[in-house]
Amino acid sequence: MTIKVAINGFGTIGKRVADAVDAQTDMEIVGVTKTGPSFGCDLAVKKGFPLYCTFDDSSKISAFADAGYSCSGGLSDLLSVADVVVDCSPGKLGAENLEKYKRAGIKYIFQGGEKHALTGQSYTSSANHSDNIGVDGTRVVSCNTTGLSRTLVPLFDYCGSLKVECTMIRRAADPGDSKKGPINAIAPVLKVPSHHGPDVMTVKPEIEINSLAVAVPTTIMHVHAIVADLPSGHGLSTESIIQMWKETPRVIVMNGVNNRITTTAEVMEMARDIGRKWGDLHEIFVWEDGISLQGDRLYYFQAIHQESDVIPENVDCIRALMGTEEDWKASVAKTDAAISSYYGL
Amino acid sequence: MTIKVAINGFGTIGKRVADAVDAQTDMEIVGVTKTGPSFGCDLAVKKGFPLYCTFDDSSKISAFADAGYSCSGGLSDLLSVADVVVDCSPGKLGAENLEKYKRAGIKYIFQGGEKHALTGQSYTSSANHSDNIGVDGTRVVSCNTTGLSRTLVPLFDYCGSLKVECTMIRRAADPGDSKKGPINAIAPVLKVPSHHGPDVMTVKPEIEINSLAVAVPTTIMHVHAIVADLPSGHGLSTESIIQMWKETPRVIVMNGVNNRITTTAEVMEMARDIGRKWGDLHEIFVWEDGISLQGDRLYYFQAIHQESDVIPENVDCIRALMGTEEDWKASVAKTDAAISSYYGL
Amino acid sequence: MTIKVAINGFGTIGKRVADAVDAQTDMEIVGVTKTGPSFGCDLAVKKGFPLYCTFDDSSKISAFADAGYSCSGGLSDLLSVADVVVDCSPGKLGAENLEKYKRAGIKYIFQGGEKHALTGQSYTSSANHSDNIGVDGTRVVSCNTTGLSRTLVPLFDYCGSLKVECTMIRRAADPGDSKKGPINAIAPVLKVPSHHGPDVMTVKPEIEINSLAVAVPTTIMHVHAIVADLPSGHGLSTESIIQMWKETPRVIVMNGVNNRITTTAEVMEMARDIGRKWGDLHEIFVWEDGISLQGDRLYYFQAIHQESDVIPENVDCIRALMGTEEDWKASVAKTDAAISSYYGL
Amino acid sequence: MTIKVAINGFGTIGKRVADAVDAQTDMEIVGVTKTGPSFGCDLAVKKGFPLYCTFDDSSKISAFADAGYSCSGGLSDLLSVADVVVDCSPGKLGAENLEKYKRAGIKYIFQGGEKHALTGQSYTSSANHSDNIGVDGTRVVSCNTTGLSRTLVPLFDYCGSLKVECTMIRRAADPGDSKKGPINAIAPVLKVPSHHGPDVMTVKPEIEINSLAVAVPTTIMHVHAIVADLPSGHGLSTESIIQMWKETPRVIVMNGVNNRITTTAEVMEMARDIGRKWGDLHEIFVWEDGISLQGDRLYYFQAIHQESDVIPENVDCIRALMGTEEDWKASVAKTDAAISSYYGL
Repeated sequence: MTIKVAINGFGTIGKRVADAVDAQTDMEIVGVTKTGPSFGCDLAVKKGFPLYCTFDDSSKISAFADAGYSCSGGLSDLLSVADVVVDCSPGKLGAENLEKYKRAGIKYIFQGGEKHALTGQSYTSSANHSDNIGVDGTRVVSCNTTGLSRTLVPLFDYCGSLKVECTMIRRAADPGDSKKGPINAIAPVLKVPSHHGPDVMTVKPEIEINSLAVAVPTTIMHVHAIVADLPSGHGLSTESIIQMWKETPRVIVMNGVNNRITTTAEVMEMARDIGRKWGDLHEIFVWEDGISLQGDRLYYFQAIHQESDVIPENVDCIRALMGTEEDWKASVAKTDAAISSYYGL
Repeated sequence: MTIKVAINGFGTIGKRVADAVDAQTDMEIVGVTKTGPSFGCDLAVKKGFPLYCTFDDSSKISAFADAGYSCSGGLSDLLSVADVVVDCSPGKLGAENLEKYKRAGIKYIFQGGEKHALTGQSYTSSANHSDNIGVDGTRVVSCNTTGLSRTLVPLFDYCGSLKVECTMIRRAADPGDSKKGPINAIAPVLKVPSHHGPDVMTVKPEIEINSLAVAVPTTIMHVHAIVADLPSGHGLSTESIIQMWKETPRVIVMNGVNNRITTTAEVMEMARDIGRKWGDLHEIFVWEDGISLQGDRLYYFQAIHQESDVIPENVDCIRALMGTEEDWKASVAKTDAAISSYYGL
Repeated sequence: MTIKVAINGFGTIGKRVADAVDAQTDMEIVGVTKTGPSFGCDLAVKKGFPLYCTFDDSSKISAFADAGYSCSGGLSDLLSVADVVVDCSPGKLGAENLEKYKRAGIKYIFQGGEKHALTGQSYTSSANHSDNIGVDGTRVVSCNTTGLSRTLVPLFDYCGSLKVECTMIRRAADPGDSKKGPINAIAPVLKVPSHHGPDVMTVKPEIEINSLAVAVPTTIMHVHAIVADLPSGHGLSTESIIQMWKETPRVIVMNGVNNRITTTAEVMEMARDIGRKWGDLHEIFVWEDGISLQGDRLYYFQAIHQESDVIPENVDCIRALMGTEEDWKASVAKTDAAISSYYGL
Repeated sequence: MTIKVAINGFGTIGKRVADAVDAQTDMEIVGVTKTGPSFGCDLAVKKGFPLYCTFDDSSKISAFADAGYSCSGGLSDLLSVADVVVDCSPGKLGAENLEKYKRAGIKYIFQGGEKHALTGQSYTSSANHSDNIGVDGTRVVSCNTTGLSRTLVPLFDYCGSLKVECTMIRRAADPGDSKKGPINAIAPVLKVPSHHGPDVMTVKPEIEINSLAVAVPTTIMHVHAIVADLPSGHGLSTESIIQMWKETPRVIVMNGVNNRITTTAEVMEMARDIGRKWGDLHEIFVWEDGISLQGDRLYYFQAIHQESDVIPENVDCIRALMGTEEDWKASVAKTDAAISSYYGL
């Protein structure tokens, strides 16, 4: 059986999830939605993804044909031929869409722009794949939460407890967004602590975590500056933590100075060299020479490609909901093999 | 016969030219050079390109082996197995390298960072492919000159004369370069007129052109603001110029407002969607709604992807030097078919 | 008689005009308006400017007292005690405000954000001070138009005719604005030619001028790249043009390379050193080494401090409307002496 | 007696210290040094500061006269007429200069670019003024250390102990610097923990502190994201900490959302409104709505004007070294009254 996947919203995240699903052997795209005819439709057409309208309104549906695009119907039509829908619509539409998905009787996955409360369930591969087996719907956590989970969960699993403070230095706009600023300022998130860190507890409640966040004038990656207190008697060293992360899926640990990759500019350049679509980096990048364990307190930096680290998580999450792969590491391996490019790190 | 191509310098331009050559059926990469072992070597290894040292010094050559990379020798060794070398070394090494290439008795191609005087010959597909058939060596002009040639040459060919002023708004650093500024300033090039525009005359001497240039705090593309005076009685209209450029190879003409592609951010996002390696855009992007012919004076804007527009030109140039394809349009078609991605505009 | 000046709108422009008016001996501030209590009110209070509400609504007026600010009434109250009002309200309120000013029977000055058609009259000191003597109301042209007038009008006055193309490289947001982007893009103004250049003709109709414009990710200054065709037989040289501008009020001509002032960053740093309020530079900055006359075609760059070049123009304009100073150079000298800091260039 | 102050280096810091010293009644500038004639000399001349050459070399001294500047001699000449020298030369010259100052037998003050070890003594008003009374020489700590001391010292003095983690989000270049990048990247300082936080212990050894640092593409201010652990039983609340800092000299506590000052762009705009020279903000800016005490853990953000927060510290430090004011609060009040503008916050 091939899992039939609908993508509701074919923008920054939607186009990437569709591409990653399309690359797998056990699932296929049965359709993607757009609000109206636009350049994004060409991308769907060329990829061979059936095009649907975000709305069921017949005049909006016929607008596609008027612009020369073949449109297969409205959202309801799409939901009726799918096993699972990945909601990649802009935020704040969650509650409304949830009703539609439930009415259609199919599984559903929301993104991290929605609150945990919407579904009462959240997901990230390394933290709680097994909790999501067979559930009706869930939320793949945000890029930041996913990034924190990747490095903190293995640390927690080893140590048994963890108390974390994270300062998130966030890119203020995505590369394709020319509207948002600031051009020359640092903008602290004045809600303190910020919501970012504690969101990790939706997938791993045992990790104690808080965060502070600022936005800065860059478009390419977030950086996390992390201070984690390990329980005494943890038995770890800087070296053994490096080793742990080198063995962790979807984490890249590289020496910055030796490889001349000391900023997010060079990290993204390396990602372009790797050759994935859109120059994406699904992995979390940890600077090896920025990791330092001082007594029980661990310091490290990691960089997050905000547009793509959650993409493979959505693929794994589909398998969890459909109950087709119970072992998270097996799913991760399958997903990544299909979307990796010629050049494996 | 397959043309044997050496790449001297495997950086921003070199890695892309190697990739593009590798994609062609009539040529192959016989080796690429690096100054020493580094992350860039991995990329060559994974692509299967034989690795050579930029120098002939045996201790520098053996440093590769020490770092775990198989190195096939020094530059002289590489030149001895090649038909043509594409020089992608950093600027200012031209004169020194030229001697080596001549001594090796092979054809050579320099990049636009070198002066025309070095080779006495310059190249861009649409302007003077035929002038370069069978010559010993030439220079593929810079990204800016290439961009100007793409749109100005067909206009000149139609009109018979052309007088042009161009203001070049240049990206101050490449995406992978975290050292250069400015962060918050505009930097005029105080040599007036700048060298950029007149360089077009190295490939098309009949076009009269001057330019002014500024650098601005962005990394992704240059923009040209162009004012071109057509000869009276030219018979063109805004619409016929749009049509001319739509039929010109390696020029994309799109309506900015209708397609929501009004800045270089959205142009580069479209390029990522197209799916070429590194998110490159080999074509010059001209905003259709930014073209306006007022009497005999033509105004337009074009965006230049500084990292990649010259890449296919190098491939065509190899064919010109080797004399294997005399028709520039045939070469362009062959080159582009091989490096285009799934999604043709 | 001291001219009684009202400032309607106490923001970026309004606070500066108020400060400049306050520094003169022949005029005084009788009040400034704010829409409601906020940090900006403190500035007015400390400067001793009577505070009025932008609206005549009594509940809005009393809101000031509730926040601890003494408010002298609504806009109508302010207009009733003024001879002239300088409208520094955000754009698009022009038509509505114009009615109020006429009803109050006082003179009025709008800013360049409003269209020429609103008043049918525009102003800049060097171009048409005498045309504005005694008129009921006018519009001080925008920072860009003011900048172009400063250097083009003396050139025109000397030559008798002038045909100009200007590419405007514009700062995308003001220093205190953290909302607007782009962070990493160049945004061409796709209306071609742009409205900026031709606006010069509202103050000097004989100058033929067009322009192209782009916005770039910087906050501090605009730069103009200008190409001006002089009539044949003009008799000027690069040196004599430099000399002309050195003798022109409110134009600074400095060698960029020799003074290490090669970008707008160093120009603004020099302005801070001069010691004017807000680090303003009322003058247009022209790079001496960026001026080049090639035959009849003149090339040059100039930098515009968008927040402040129009400030002294508003002061001169008040004198024109009130008919108290018919000689523009005398007014300029008086204005500038009063607002200059300890350090005269 | 008026203290005779020499400024060695008249750049970003030197010109500001000279200006602040000049504004005091108990000290005067006897001279400032420049390496050679340049635009910066004009500023000294206009201010009436005697100009000296950084070197004692007679040909370098005569170069000033050749360029039309009156030069009073070399560094030795300046030192011979001074009671104290403030070293504002670029970093790395410390050891060499120290010898000269000792030889001249005068007091000396270095800046935070030099290491504590150079003098074995460091200074910041609120932390250790009394330790510096009458010493031969000291080092005014860096802008970041000064900023941390301002808010942490009163907290420590109240609580008796403090354990702090600080993430420093640093501006990558000063406003007048157009050379340095990055334009679009975040650059972590891979030495972990960074040197910034622990430097606080040179003035207040009892505060336990570490830090992580990143540089970001902005020019105007640093931001500190701070997590401080108070000892149990501290008896403080968010409100009482706000009150404490409101009563602390050179700290501004303002509500960001209510005052629409939510980023460093608006903080700097407020500073320009205040009207100090160069638009400086000598105070540390703390967002009131970004302060949150959660149990014993305190979270807050503060913004640092890197060009100016140390300026008044240098004035106080002169009084400490000369032994003319033993009460730090009295010195601070005297210094600030002299350099404050019309508008006191």
